[in-house]
Amino acid sequence: MKILALNGSSRDNGNTEYMVTSLLEGIEASVVDLRKYTINPIIDKRHDPEGFGPVDDDYDTVISQVLDQDILVFATPLYWYGMSGHMKNFVDRWSQSLRDPRYDFRTIMSEKKALSLIVGGDRVYQKALPLVQQFALIYDFMGIENLGYVIGNGSKPQTVQADRRVAGDLRFWNEYLKQTM
Amino acid sequence: MKILALNGSSRDNGNTEYMVTSLLEGIEASVVDLRKYTINPIIDKRHDPEGFGPVDDDYDTVISQVLDQDILVFATPLYWYGMSGHMKNFVDRWSQSLRDPRYDFRTIMSEKKALSLIVGGDRVYQKALPLVQQFALIYDFMGIENLGYVIGNGSKPQTVQADRRVAGDLRFWNEYLKQTM
Amino acid sequence: MKILALNGSSRDNGNTEYMVTSLLEGIEASVVDLRKYTINPIIDKRHDPEGFGPVDDDYDTVISQVLDQDILVFATPLYWYGMSGHMKNFVDRWSQSLRDPRYDFRTIMSEKKALSLIVGGDRVYQKALPLVQQFALIYDFMGIENLGYVIGNGSKPQTVQADRRVAGDLRFWNEYLKQTM
Amino acid sequence: MKILALNGSSRDNGNTEYMVTSLLEGIEASVVDLRKYTINPIIDKRHDPEGFGPVDDDYDTVISQVLDQDILVFATPLYWYGMSGHMKNFVDRWSQSLRDPRYDFRTIMSEKKALSLIVGGDRVYQKALPLVQQFALIYDFMGIENLGYVIGNGSKPQTVQADRRVAGDLRFWNEYLKQTM
Repeated sequence: MKILALNGSSRDNGNTEYMVTSLLEGIEASVVDLRKYTINPIIDKRHDPEGFGPVDDDYDTVISQVLDQDILVFATPLYWYGMSGHMKNFVDRWSQSLRDPRYDFRTIMSEKKALSLIVGGDRVYQKALPLVQQFALIYDFMGIENLGYVIGNGSKPQTVQADRRVAGDLRFWNEYLKQTM
Repeated sequence: MKILALNGSSRDNGNTEYMVTSLLEGIEASVVDLRKYTINPIIDKRHDPEGFGPVDDDYDTVISQVLDQDILVFATPLYWYGMSGHMKNFVDRWSQSLRDPRYDFRTIMSEKKALSLIVGGDRVYQKALPLVQQFALIYDFMGIENLGYVIGNGSKPQTVQADRRVAGDLRFWNEYLKQTM
Repeated sequence: MKILALNGSSRDNGNTEYMVTSLLEGIEASVVDLRKYTINPIIDKRHDPEGFGPVDDDYDTVISQVLDQDILVFATPLYWYGMSGHMKNFVDRWSQSLRDPRYDFRTIMSEKKALSLIVGGDRVYQKALPLVQQFALIYDFMGIENLGYVIGNGSKPQTVQADRRVAGDLRFWNEYLKQTM
Repeated sequence: MKILALNGSSRDNGNTEYMVTSLLEGIEASVVDLRKYTINPIIDKRHDPEGFGPVDDDYDTVISQVLDQDILVFATPLYWYGMSGHMKNFVDRWSQSLRDPRYDFRTIMSEKKALSLIVGGDRVYQKALPLVQQFALIYDFMGIENLGYVIGNGSKPQTVQADRRVAGDLRFWNEYLKQTM
């Protein structure tokens, strides 16, 4: 199984990074820090006779890494009760990939599994639930198997380390991922 | 009452634009098409000793229009079961405004009211609900009065015009807004 | 099309009754006031070798009326952010009907359509959303076509009549139902 | 701290009971099996000039035990994507307690903390979320501090014991409760 984590955080050494590192401890996996790539918001050409044209940014670089995986980890801080703009810009562009003649995006994605990782403060265990539901709808739409979600509590850098509840959850998923190898 | 609609759609003449136009018929109001502005994803400097520095994009232009309003309409197509990346990038940057010494963002925003407008296909009346909840959490966090939400059904351009259910809802809110003038 | 409304309210002349009456104006339909029947909470015998035995209450009377319909309206006040206990007791007993050899409950139910009607005070347009989602999950599980939902604002008796937003919605659904006749 | 678990399951030796037992291992606490009490659905007299009269059932017996606690555990199987009818009938009757002159229900409840325990099959980690949100709304309305929620996977009796994810969560909350003693 090939595993890739997409990190939607906008900073280094943050809680999202900590959770991804814990989750993947002792596991061969790739991590893509979305903030290090330029991915433009989508320009919707779905109903345009010419369709989508090429966009001069890093989307193709990132999506080509995604296509090649078995398990995707969508790891994001809870920004304004949703995934970060970095991650949303990336996901929005899937509408373009769905019409890309170079690959059969829907079929390829439907063979993958996904796990959602969300970290935030301010009663995150409740307030992340709309995002958990959004991820579920996204996975369902693409036929991706929804493995589950992990919610961590932490706002200031590294504070998620003190959340012993998420620590247990991350161990569970770490073992789960190890068994898929 | 000053009214501003923020349109998160990535295309002209779309269903979002149609809904905004219907809502505001006969009302003096401004519309900001977010796609016409460059707004970068946030780079989180909340926990950085230097804090946020100036960003070379159009965020300041847009937020300065927002600050001056009484009622905000957040109008977005349902992209991947959330607000569009254009709109998410804009909202994410509020974290920066919360630390901007030039104005008291929290107090100014807490004096506003907001209405959410969402349009999409694929069982939108159900699948928009996580976004309705996300908007509610955003408004609550900022102390913005949550007027309500309007969900419209339409995916291909202009098809929302055939949704007679949303037509009635838009008339209701149009009259509501007229009475505030 | 045969239409039946299940009214979960615990009082006469309430807002739920008003919404049901408005919805069905000029339409031939039946109404079952669940409070007038004794329906015991389920005793789960799914995993009992003997299975479910007969229960001495009115469940059979009500479910036999339900089986015979094309469109079901689940109308309930929002009690503690869910359907009323009267209605929940009734729905819980479906687990028994799923194992009832006298009819093929799942197949019969999967041929029906359903509309949810919810009325409450205290920011009902937001706070009814978990119940809207619960109804959707129930309908999906049974294969019932989910027509949609109507949320009305009113707590004291008859106050929903002042909610002009729901009035428009009820007119829309009244016309929808008329066209199915 | 006095701890009481309300078990909404309709059977003995079920998954809910197993979760409650695990949660409370080594802790002095009471358990009320709601199925062993007769609690009628509410008859709404809030807007009746005479108000609520006495009801001839076991509600008073149960609520008097509840009043005396510091931490309440609401443990329920996920029946039709909500709490069981047994538990819903009980909670609905709080509307009566809010008007009971013998005690100040709102104030007494607002001094408590609550934890929600939900167990079910069929993708329970997703499908329990509306109920998690409903519990949060209930606690917020009463001013009860919302400690959190535990979701367990299991449908046939005792199968939740195989859910190693919830095992970790239950250990976390067991330690949490021990520290409150």
